[in-house]
Amino acid sequence: MNAPASAARPPDHAFSSVFALLGPHLLELDRFLHGQLAAFEPEIRAMADYCIDTSGKRIRPALVFFSGWRGPDQISPDLVRVAAVVELVHLATLVHDDIMDAAEVRRGRRTAAREYGATAAVLLGDALFAHALNLATQFPTTEVCSAVSESTRRVCTGEIMQTLRRGSTRLTRADYQRIIDLKTAELFRVSCFLGARQAGFDPGYVEAVSRFGRHLGIAYQIYDDLADFFGEEKRTGKTLGTDLASGKVTLPLFLLMERLPAAEREELTAEILGQRPVQPALHLRQMRELGIYGAVAEVVMTEAAAATAALQAWPAEPPTPLLLGLGEVLRGQVAALRPATP
Amino acid sequence: MNAPASAARPPDHAFSSVFALLGPHLLELDRFLHGQLAAFEPEIRAMADYCIDTSGKRIRPALVFFSGWRGPDQISPDLVRVAAVVELVHLATLVHDDIMDAAEVRRGRRTAAREYGATAAVLLGDALFAHALNLATQFPTTEVCSAVSESTRRVCTGEIMQTLRRGSTRLTRADYQRIIDLKTAELFRVSCFLGARQAGFDPGYVEAVSRFGRHLGIAYQIYDDLADFFGEEKRTGKTLGTDLASGKVTLPLFLLMERLPAAEREELTAEILGQRPVQPALHLRQMRELGIYGAVAEVVMTEAAAATAALQAWPAEPPTPLLLGLGEVLRGQVAALRPATP
Repeated sequence: MNAPASAARPPDHAFSSVFALLGPHLLELDRFLHGQLAAFEPEIRAMADYCIDTSGKRIRPALVFFSGWRGPDQISPDLVRVAAVVELVHLATLVHDDIMDAAEVRRGRRTAAREYGATAAVLLGDALFAHALNLATQFPTTEVCSAVSESTRRVCTGEIMQTLRRGSTRLTRADYQRIIDLKTAELFRVSCFLGARQAGFDPGYVEAVSRFGRHLGIAYQIYDDLADFFGEEKRTGKTLGTDLASGKVTLPLFLLMERLPAAEREELTAEILGQRPVQPALHLRQMRELGIYGAVAEVVMTEAAAATAALQAWPAEPPTPLLLGLGEVLRGQVAALRPATP
Repeated sequence: MNAPASAARPPDHAFSSVFALLGPHLLELDRFLHGQLAAFEPEIRAMADYCIDTSGKRIRPALVFFSGWRGPDQISPDLVRVAAVVELVHLATLVHDDIMDAAEVRRGRRTAAREYGATAAVLLGDALFAHALNLATQFPTTEVCSAVSESTRRVCTGEIMQTLRRGSTRLTRADYQRIIDLKTAELFRVSCFLGARQAGFDPGYVEAVSRFGRHLGIAYQIYDDLADFFGEEKRTGKTLGTDLASGKVTLPLFLLMERLPAAEREELTAEILGQRPVQPALHLRQMRELGIYGAVAEVVMTEAAAATAALQAWPAEPPTPLLLGLGEVLRGQVAALRPATP
């Protein structure tokens, strides 16, 4: 569920234009999240603290704050709580993801799985998730908890589908789209939905903002999959080609398979099936030669355009320019991945 | 979190006296649980179905139904839904437990971890849990979801504590009590609490029933730990001494350590630390010689008495005789473990 968070970290300046507005909100969110530690039993407080690190990109909270934006002067406690709920759900999924990927390091320090062992990490993720849902019950109605628990089930479903298809080439493009819609776009969508709902916007606008979030989430995940091949290791902080190495077929690989001559395709297939060692450098060269960057970037841009279109009828609502700004940031990130030679 | 469910399955007749009353309720619960499958995305429906098996003892649902008992003629849909919530939380924890224990078989068939792989099983447990919490939001207020999510966090905390102490002899009696209070008694307690609340009983009685549940849960877990050494393999369906083999220090082992002469204690310590092969037959003989059965049974009986005492002031409420009946069943199960020779 973590692909976005684990992946290409944009240069700080890319986010800064829009994100700068959120400084006080994110500070308040951090304060709130650390305040939550008191709710955990003393025996696991330090472990929970370890997971609630502050170096994440906080994209989902940003979607909450922007979708519920009424102006820069007020920080609504309800929005802070909603942002904490979605971020805790996200953190819980990261803890579980790192177990499954046997990841040793995340954001420059040891993963919870590495620090406490896989067994404790499964349970720690459960506890974080349970607390997220508990926080979600601290609203007058069941709406927040209902939306978040349903989204979480969908996120897990997407992850399960992806897991079961690892090391297999029997994945259709429709499967891929369904997987990213569930595993990534769903939590983006619900972040936008809940932000706009809490702020009391018109139901039509809440629906529009939710659609924006879903398309942005799809675009973001595809961008992230693209960055796995075309990112710079130094900037992204992760080894390139890890998706290929783990047998995960994402859109860039999918399109490469379609475009490769039969012999090379068979070779790549054998690598995905784990029948021979992967050759990331070779496939990156093939991708450059076959225009994979451009083809994938086009799909991202189409989704980003769909996100923008969702807000077209609502130019005057305060969240609209901010959300569109996030779309611009993403477009910039995709452009920054463009290889020097085609 | 599963120790009770994975453990000694009592002979059918032992439960039958009280449980017979619940026949229609448990049938309705099964129907309801299978009806929930439609809420899961089609891609994981079969996997969820696999987990919602019907051969469990359904102890927590029984606590819900009995605690909310108003008479045999009505099956309250709200109680059925609450029972489904606690059972789904329990099932989710079982799915995660089986990953951590690398268990291959549960209740006569392959565990989800064995069937779908550990990675998918982590996510499947998450999805079951998310759906349980989603069901919990289908009440007019946030109360059910709030209570269940908090309990779940506490259950996980108890499990984490137990996990981190595996293979260690630095466990105090207070640690052991705290662990079973969290990992087992908590869900028993909340099952009773929610059952009585849904039925609209007097707050004082709801509190009494909750206390009953907590003490019964503690008693049940200690009984279960006793059965790990003194049960019959044929009847319990599991290998005896598995707790010792996995480095888990439970009350019988704890008391044995206290009573063994220094040399034997050192030997046992080395086994728990994984420094030498475990000798279950030897330790079972030592337990018989040193009266461990009697000492542990006494602790169970003390907790069962505390459970009974919690209801003393409320003899006329319909749930009281049924809950006391459950306590009697447990006492009978403990007595059935008594070794032929002291």
